[in-house]
Amino acid sequence: MIQVAVLGYGTVGSGVVEVIEHNNAEVSKNAGEEVHVKYILDLRDFPGDPYEDKVVHDFNLIIKDQEVSVICEVMGGVGAAYQFTKQALEAGKSVCTSNKELVAKHGVELLAIAAEKNCNYMFEASVGGGIPIIRSIQNALTPEKIEAVTGILNGTTNYILSKMEREGADYGEVLKQAQALGYAERNPEADVEGHDACRKIAILASLITGKYVDAEKIYTEGITGITREDFEFARAAGMTIKLLAQARLEEDGSVLAMVAPHMLSKEHSLAMVNDVFNGIFVTGNMLGDAMFYGHGAGKLPTASAVVADVIDCIRNQGRTMQSPWEETGIRLADVAQTRKKFYVRIKASERGRIDEVFPGSSIIEAIDHKEAVGFFTPEMCEQELDEKCALLKESILSTIRVL
Amino acid sequence: MIQVAVLGYGTVGSGVVEVIEHNNAEVSKNAGEEVHVKYILDLRDFPGDPYEDKVVHDFNLIIKDQEVSVICEVMGGVGAAYQFTKQALEAGKSVCTSNKELVAKHGVELLAIAAEKNCNYMFEASVGGGIPIIRSIQNALTPEKIEAVTGILNGTTNYILSKMEREGADYGEVLKQAQALGYAERNPEADVEGHDACRKIAILASLITGKYVDAEKIYTEGITGITREDFEFARAAGMTIKLLAQARLEEDGSVLAMVAPHMLSKEHSLAMVNDVFNGIFVTGNMLGDAMFYGHGAGKLPTASAVVADVIDCIRNQGRTMQSPWEETGIRLADVAQTRKKFYVRIKASERGRIDEVFPGSSIIEAIDHKEAVGFFTPEMCEQELDEKCALLKESILSTIRVL
Repeated sequence: MIQVAVLGYGTVGSGVVEVIEHNNAEVSKNAGEEVHVKYILDLRDFPGDPYEDKVVHDFNLIIKDQEVSVICEVMGGVGAAYQFTKQALEAGKSVCTSNKELVAKHGVELLAIAAEKNCNYMFEASVGGGIPIIRSIQNALTPEKIEAVTGILNGTTNYILSKMEREGADYGEVLKQAQALGYAERNPEADVEGHDACRKIAILASLITGKYVDAEKIYTEGITGITREDFEFARAAGMTIKLLAQARLEEDGSVLAMVAPHMLSKEHSLAMVNDVFNGIFVTGNMLGDAMFYGHGAGKLPTASAVVADVIDCIRNQGRTMQSPWEETGIRLADVAQTRKKFYVRIKASERGRIDEVFPGSSIIEAIDHKEAVGFFTPEMCEQELDEKCALLKESILSTIRVL
Repeated sequence: MIQVAVLGYGTVGSGVVEVIEHNNAEVSKNAGEEVHVKYILDLRDFPGDPYEDKVVHDFNLIIKDQEVSVICEVMGGVGAAYQFTKQALEAGKSVCTSNKELVAKHGVELLAIAAEKNCNYMFEASVGGGIPIIRSIQNALTPEKIEAVTGILNGTTNYILSKMEREGADYGEVLKQAQALGYAERNPEADVEGHDACRKIAILASLITGKYVDAEKIYTEGITGITREDFEFARAAGMTIKLLAQARLEEDGSVLAMVAPHMLSKEHSLAMVNDVFNGIFVTGNMLGDAMFYGHGAGKLPTASAVVADVIDCIRNQGRTMQSPWEETGIRLADVAQTRKKFYVRIKASERGRIDEVFPGSSIIEAIDHKEAVGFFTPEMCEQELDEKCALLKESILSTIRVL
């Protein structure tokens, strides 16, 4: 029998307990041993909860209990969660987490401790919720040189953009509705400014390179500047707008990592990923393209991913499954020097200057807008775009990268 | 160092050698040991081929070579392939295959031998080509009660249907083009009659139930009856037509398994899977829906899946990863008793009888067709549909299930 401790009895924590106990037949069969939750660590009490007798307030009880071999850290944050995870791994107990912030910040150190102690630090749930993207990269795409990962990794922003597209609504209006429905936080910054997606792509970039990618060094742009008009022009061009997180191996050995809204064809597989769903597109040098799609968040999908990790830890007791990340050696590409096409929207009064400043552009003619004109530039580097935009100054209403 | 033998130097076989040797850095790193191909078994010689010195004609050489621990069976068929696989597993050598026919026919026996000999019989490449669907079911969705798997599992038929939809072309015309391009065989029966998809869903059904599902007992209907007119009506209703393979746990403990064309909304994720791509939709009781998408066939994607299995066998030497399938105990649901909606197309002259024979139906009004009228029935069981259709006899032009 395997005893599990769950740190944090919030949304994901209660989901983890539910998955282990409700699906106990499947969980135990696939683990090869009976699995149960012995402790739930939380500051609060939960009188009346079916598992209230498992609730404890002292982590020492858990760390000292030899019966507990796997710990689920689903409390979040990088304070106590970090200390508890480190202590657990040092004691040879495997840790499974949904805490992307902690993985992105201290993953290098925690993976190294796990390797040293022959246990595992697992974080499938930290990226893409219930989508088994980390496991696919580590166990399925093993013959591949993974050249690029491009994903819709944040459900909140995807919900907002999908709704803006479908209803022709403004950003602020949709954000308010999303907040009312609980899809967006009262302080939505981590989502709408792209920080959440940034941490996730940092983790994926570290996985495909084997080297630590610092989330704080990744170019990140959110969706707060996207307007109803941008969607009107996108629609006219047969396109849509998505917040994409990308990690791509460049020919010079550097890695392009960035989070930014992109305009992409309605025919692209990622354009089909709507509402709170996540989708992740992976390109391997042998496999070509593959895509993974599912619930990027939510109590049970996220908990299911945590429990899949628990099962893997049980199947692989005494051996570390993952390679640690090298702490140094990553070289991030300079986003300003990367080349792509751009969508640009300018004041209609400047239409006559498009040919002069942006030669070779194609104007989106399918829409007749009184105040603005939209066009696609030829491929150019980001810095060049900025220089050209400076020439038209206040007439530039928006620019969005084209995938 | 791990030595691998490849049985069959055709399309997939040469791909396997290419993946192992071209991506040797990735393959060896992820396997944890250096991996090389020692033998290629084929009846033919390959003078001038870079690996001609590895080609042998006698399987005994391979089976007796203690250095060979993993064998890739990519020769196809259920004759020699079966004998060689059995001998290899009995000798404790793991076997990785893309041979769906063999897995569907002798999987029970071969998995049992692998379990007895502490080695592995692996077949990721047998379903969905480069899509890691088997690994996801076995290693990622382990906490789940998998309630249903619905997939587009055959690239040839999906190519034909996509092209019929896009170009408004007839089935026969598109089949000829597909044959000219090499997307369809000269004898296309295995694909267009649904037999290939049937073997694949039999394998997936066995995986999610743990019990052997005999492909020959699965209700299978191909795409040869789908016409240009059906696509016209589908388009008018905002839908498309796909050949779907399904396995679903029913409430009474039986399993519904079938292959048949279905009409589905253009908004459904599977509607986005076009051309030779495959897509597989999985529903878990905790996870909800997840989808996997990629190249369902092709030399390198398929070979990549075989090599991913090779790497897993090396990582797990001396232990069997899969549960054998129970040989008996599966109960297949009677398709005739399952309930769904149907699209029906009848001669325009019978329009007046729709209300009488199919009360509650909704006619597809968005299309004005001279000779035919199309409508959707309310939910009913298949047998009931057949009985109703018998009342209108020769006036029935086509019926297609609605997802």
